[in-house]
Amino acid sequence: MSPVAIEDPADPRLAPYAAMRERDLVGRAGRFIVEGEVTLRLLASTRSRFRAESVLLAPERWPGLAADLGGIGAPVYLAGKAVMSAVAGFPIHRGVLAVGLRGSEPDAEALVPPAPAPALVLGLAGLTNHDNVGGCFRNAAAFGADAVLLDAATCDPLYRKAIRVSAGAALITPFAQLAAGADWPALAVRLGLELLALSPSGAETLDGLAPPRRTLLLLGTEGPGLAPALMARMRTLRIPMAPGFDSLNVATAGAIALHRLASRSGSVPGEEY
Amino acid sequence: MSPVAIEDPADPRLAPYAAMRERDLVGRAGRFIVEGEVTLRLLASTRSRFRAESVLLAPERWPGLAADLGGIGAPVYLAGKAVMSAVAGFPIHRGVLAVGLRGSEPDAEALVPPAPAPALVLGLAGLTNHDNVGGCFRNAAAFGADAVLLDAATCDPLYRKAIRVSAGAALITPFAQLAAGADWPALAVRLGLELLALSPSGAETLDGLAPPRRTLLLLGTEGPGLAPALMARMRTLRIPMAPGFDSLNVATAGAIALHRLASRSGSVPGEEY
Repeated sequence: MSPVAIEDPADPRLAPYAAMRERDLVGRAGRFIVEGEVTLRLLASTRSRFRAESVLLAPERWPGLAADLGGIGAPVYLAGKAVMSAVAGFPIHRGVLAVGLRGSEPDAEALVPPAPAPALVLGLAGLTNHDNVGGCFRNAAAFGADAVLLDAATCDPLYRKAIRVSAGAALITPFAQLAAGADWPALAVRLGLELLALSPSGAETLDGLAPPRRTLLLLGTEGPGLAPALMARMRTLRIPMAPGFDSLNVATAGAIALHRLASRSGSVPGEEY
Repeated sequence: MSPVAIEDPADPRLAPYAAMRERDLVGRAGRFIVEGEVTLRLLASTRSRFRAESVLLAPERWPGLAADLGGIGAPVYLAGKAVMSAVAGFPIHRGVLAVGLRGSEPDAEALVPPAPAPALVLGLAGLTNHDNVGGCFRNAAAFGADAVLLDAATCDPLYRKAIRVSAGAALITPFAQLAAGADWPALAVRLGLELLALSPSGAETLDGLAPPRRTLLLLGTEGPGLAPALMARMRTLRIPMAPGFDSLNVATAGAIALHRLASRSGSVPGEEY
């Protein structure tokens, strides 16, 4: 498909890119915004479960991306950075944007490899910071997690900044949002996963753990963490830290745990022990 | 010291708080800005090696902080959030600011415990992103690193956002900036530390490592990483990851390595193996 030059910021084909920050806050009715070359390449690849609706590039970015966008199956619009910035409402320095379509949301059950296959699933409970959710997805992808499950309070991984911080992992790591009031222990039983909750007040140390073959690793809210009543119903892990300093960032703590779990669950090939 | 109410944004005592974002870019001639309660408490504590020059609070924040600021030895100014925001040039939602004094910069040699004591030192080479530098400090503090050494290309850990992302760790974890052209392998020899460089192309896996008693863990630039010519002169480690996904964030990768090194070097007490 040949790219189409657009010079008028009011062109209706650019409407999905308009007032980008304001729309981040209210949502986009089944659409999401992808920024930057690395993330666009992932969206265009067969590794993404999402389809692009359109791509919007500064003309000088087209030659470097043309080969990778050949099969994207969506129109590619070319507009100067001044036009792109006028539409978006703030400077678009990199000149690479796309609109993706969310499609239907999968069920958690469909994403988790059935037993007895090994499985590594990340659960996010009450993570309301987009950077942290993006970071969790990046780490999940790096350590080959099969899926990420999010409770109803956790923010959208397809929020613009979350995708960017995830380095595109939000596009390629399957995820499902659970219904409000979802019960993690019951879900783990249903999926045949051993539930391990990471918390600064966890009962066992991460390093003392014999990693299970099938794990649901649960991370809780940045501030208060997982609720004590919930923790009482789970096996809980802590990462020992130096005394007197608050704690690790939740995505960072999750990365340390994923690293340990992945290296034993077969999610990361080529590791030797 | 009793707090002093200030109502005029042009009051010269508030000058160090003026045009905050613009000054972030040009530096502050021996001063730095601390934001937020957690970070201010660290600045006021004996754990910080820095002195406060002044504190600027919204009046309603004073009662909750008065006890902790008793020994800060610097004037406390009270101004409404509207005045604070007018001075800073953007909304100051939390109503907690302070100016710290950098003081003299220590030498690297002064920060590292002499052999044969165990030591864990983090080295940052070419890290130009303030979030990443802040994240590295937070992780260094969480795992009890003795010091952080920064090459001349790495950005200032006392940059406003770096302090915030570090959760105040930049105030309490000793650091020294090296002269331009500093040679990491020679420095490690001089300090009696084993130099281990973390890189996606490292020769050994982190998990295969027998952690040394005295380590200098080196992290490289986000994009290109450590230069091959430099890597050839060092022992290099990698964290195995899933194929086909770019890599971890540098601070996150550093956290995984610090966790492994700290748990063996005695930096984190109470760990059992």
